[in-house]
Amino acid sequence: MSIKYKNLDTLSSYKELKEQTEEVILKDVLTRERIRNYSVPVGGGLIYNYAAKAVNENIIDVLQKIADEQQLSSKYREVLNGEFINTGENRKVLHHLTRGQLGSDVIFENKNLRDFYVDQQNRIREFSAQIHSGEIKGSTGKKFDTVVQIGIGGSDLGPRAMYLALENIYETKMDAYFISNVDPDDANAVLGKINMETSLFILVSKSGTTQETLANKNFVLEKTKKAHIKGFNPALHMIAVTSETSPLAGSDEYLDSFYMDDFIGGRYSSTSAVGGAVLSLALGSEVFDQFLAGANDADRAAMEKDIRKNAAMLDALIGVYERNIMNYGQTAVLPYSQALNRFPAHLQQMDMESNGKSVNRTGKTVNYSTGPVIFGEPGTNGQHSFYQLLHQGTDIIPLQFIGFKDSQIPFDLEYEGSDSQQKLKANLVAQIVAFAKGKEDENKNKNFPGQRPSSLIYGTQLTARTLGALLAHFENKVLFQGFTWNVNSFDQEGVQLGKLLAKQVLAGGDDLDEALKGFTELLEI
Amino acid sequence: MSIKYKNLDTLSSYKELKEQTEEVILKDVLTRERIRNYSVPVGGGLIYNYAAKAVNENIIDVLQKIADEQQLSSKYREVLNGEFINTGENRKVLHHLTRGQLGSDVIFENKNLRDFYVDQQNRIREFSAQIHSGEIKGSTGKKFDTVVQIGIGGSDLGPRAMYLALENIYETKMDAYFISNVDPDDANAVLGKINMETSLFILVSKSGTTQETLANKNFVLEKTKKAHIKGFNPALHMIAVTSETSPLAGSDEYLDSFYMDDFIGGRYSSTSAVGGAVLSLALGSEVFDQFLAGANDADRAAMEKDIRKNAAMLDALIGVYERNIMNYGQTAVLPYSQALNRFPAHLQQMDMESNGKSVNRTGKTVNYSTGPVIFGEPGTNGQHSFYQLLHQGTDIIPLQFIGFKDSQIPFDLEYEGSDSQQKLKANLVAQIVAFAKGKEDENKNKNFPGQRPSSLIYGTQLTARTLGALLAHFENKVLFQGFTWNVNSFDQEGVQLGKLLAKQVLAGGDDLDEALKGFTELLEI
Repeated sequence: MSIKYKNLDTLSSYKELKEQTEEVILKDVLTRERIRNYSVPVGGGLIYNYAAKAVNENIIDVLQKIADEQQLSSKYREVLNGEFINTGENRKVLHHLTRGQLGSDVIFENKNLRDFYVDQQNRIREFSAQIHSGEIKGSTGKKFDTVVQIGIGGSDLGPRAMYLALENIYETKMDAYFISNVDPDDANAVLGKINMETSLFILVSKSGTTQETLANKNFVLEKTKKAHIKGFNPALHMIAVTSETSPLAGSDEYLDSFYMDDFIGGRYSSTSAVGGAVLSLALGSEVFDQFLAGANDADRAAMEKDIRKNAAMLDALIGVYERNIMNYGQTAVLPYSQALNRFPAHLQQMDMESNGKSVNRTGKTVNYSTGPVIFGEPGTNGQHSFYQLLHQGTDIIPLQFIGFKDSQIPFDLEYEGSDSQQKLKANLVAQIVAFAKGKEDENKNKNFPGQRPSSLIYGTQLTARTLGALLAHFENKVLFQGFTWNVNSFDQEGVQLGKLLAKQVLAGGDDLDEALKGFTELLEI
Repeated sequence: MSIKYKNLDTLSSYKELKEQTEEVILKDVLTRERIRNYSVPVGGGLIYNYAAKAVNENIIDVLQKIADEQQLSSKYREVLNGEFINTGENRKVLHHLTRGQLGSDVIFENKNLRDFYVDQQNRIREFSAQIHSGEIKGSTGKKFDTVVQIGIGGSDLGPRAMYLALENIYETKMDAYFISNVDPDDANAVLGKINMETSLFILVSKSGTTQETLANKNFVLEKTKKAHIKGFNPALHMIAVTSETSPLAGSDEYLDSFYMDDFIGGRYSSTSAVGGAVLSLALGSEVFDQFLAGANDADRAAMEKDIRKNAAMLDALIGVYERNIMNYGQTAVLPYSQALNRFPAHLQQMDMESNGKSVNRTGKTVNYSTGPVIFGEPGTNGQHSFYQLLHQGTDIIPLQFIGFKDSQIPFDLEYEGSDSQQKLKANLVAQIVAFAKGKEDENKNKNFPGQRPSSLIYGTQLTARTLGALLAHFENKVLFQGFTWNVNSFDQEGVQLGKLLAKQVLAGGDDLDEALKGFTELLEI
């Protein structure tokens, strides 16, 4: 069967979906049986439950037709097989290959790329072991106890969110810090907290040309010089994670270099050397291996053609239903786990940068809505913040809950008949039902309309393995949505204009655009 | 003139706004002169610039009519004068009174409430000085060096965001930590980082009944007992911030208690004892005094009737124009200052919990959109994350930029012709212009449609004073929008149903709602 890329609104199954007028009333359908049945394995032991989504068997049947007509499974296999899926940049899309091989061998320039990724992982494993054992020490002879990632966007958000998600459940081998913003207050604040003699910096930039990251590298190097530490040699305190063709690769300025390539997009790089170096150094490479295994589990689960058995594809298509049929513009990500406090920020990048597009894969403007706005905070905190609007605001916002049976740290205490973890879970369950079923009240101010759809991803505990599966689930969901909307989820042309204009502002000159001049005056640049 | 509360869609000026069909094309109008002229003082030395908003003099004239017809200035004065503005709960709204007196004396039960708030501030000042000097020591005789706030929602987000915004510009007198989530991983992680012997806990709950906060108080107390520190007395390590009528008030369980009252809503409590205690302890009461002075400046600026001279009111009404005429559903808050990294999360609560309502002040359903979704991250980080969607997505999202001429920490370094602060500002300016003007390209994938409206609040430096003004600006903006939409911005009935159902889940029993039972099974509560 040949692969055809079609706009969503040209599919006959999409027309069928638009014509289907059945409304699923959540307060009527949400039975115990439906809650038990509407569950799909995500991989890594996680389950995706969609009982509180406003769909029924008929709607899911039509979503299956869209999946089939849009050839979502075949397109996913093309990704796994290393086809040039990123049409905008003429690149393969290989983040799945960093955590296992599910398709055919991917050979590029006579190199088996699975071998390449595994090789980098093994090099990181060995390097981390040498750092942890003290075989490699800092330039003044002290053991390294701190790792500082210098990177922005995908080199920051994903690795940082993953580190925060895991730092309390595993024994931390090194404390991790992150410098991302070009705001000098960011680097200054981090450098004020660490001991340079025992710190190892990881410079992360695929191209080796990211303005913020190079400025921060220079910032760190100059600041270490100004510290006048006797015998300190910055070259022995920094490693690079970059592509083999970047100006940073193999430089004498660094203790070592680890590689990724152009086939791993920044926002998909947590399972490559970008996440691998910092996570292996901070938490140990065994933890990173489990993280990869969980992601691979979810990748395998996403190969299933039946959407009722494929959590990522089902999640994606319910999202398309909500976006294009129900016209909901946002999705809130609500993890009931404090450790996932930066996971929504990572998803915000991954989803919005991938599918926040107005043109299809061949550069034609599409006539339908694409990627929604993603935002979120951990529960129960969010309950005391923006949930008011979610319950009683004038717009309906679909919700993505995440929860675990057990906390990460085993210590817990009972208070007024339940322990904290039980309270946390009780709040999660209560919110799903409150959003779905609402509660009528004659006093309209206390009335809850309900019919706010949500799904729940849950598991036993947030571990490296479940975190890997959770991450890959959303990566694959976004990929399936991109194929459904027929956009290229793997480029980001929308970030270019700002970069260009910022350079013009810094270069200055009389021919600078008038508006740039005007704002430059205000801020006294 | 008597005050009338009217729905927005009953105003003749609103009809006029809807009928006005002029479209302001940003790439045509954004001249240097407009950029210079479209500036309004916020207070505290900050400026609100709206040159890149898609409005013109005619539209602003109509917005002025709405302000006048909806009596926004008079209603604001009613707030300042201590009227019972919060109709849902029959309460005054007095957060302005914590930072100065701009209206008449507010007397309640024979008490002058300005005196009450000042008295609490003075008590905190004295207490903080005693802690800092070592006059009050921990129970084992050690000086306190750490303060831990236990609170959730408004007792957490605002104070935490303010602390993070200021910790690097002032000498920190005590390190501050925050425990908010009922997830036991939150309390465990914080308690794992601190030395209990030198830590002072602040228990913050207005009602004294917040489930999460009481559970966390118990958690902390039990954990300190289990540490078996010789001579340790938890009662000498905890203070309470609560209302005088709460069960926590004046208890022997605490070293001391400081008070707020029912007239300060949680999300507006950063300038009350809720923010005052932790910020005075962590940064010194002189810093907190400047923060209050900045907020008072902005409160005074908001009294102006001419919207061209009242930044908060103009910001509010442009927001209403974007929400109700242009049908934009979100606003992104984009501070170009790493220190403001949690400020968007605070605004998310303040705005969405205040105006995420579907009924007016008398409990009638409104027929127009109210509060938008608020989200954001600091620039330049966000540029490498969700800006792709902001530039090229299918929905237009209005933007609120924030920037400063100088960084907080003076140390900076030049790299490739500019220092980091210049790069930061150049990126900010570039983004405003890129969003407004766009850039045509024959390759639609590289095409930027522009016409994405933004405003900019800027000042010399992020200090306690400018931070106070920034906070109060948004509080007053939200207040003016609430009056414009005729909703009660000061209650939050939407949080009640979840609390009720969570209690039912924890109580269990056979008559539990079937859906609650179903999800309870999944999560093994």
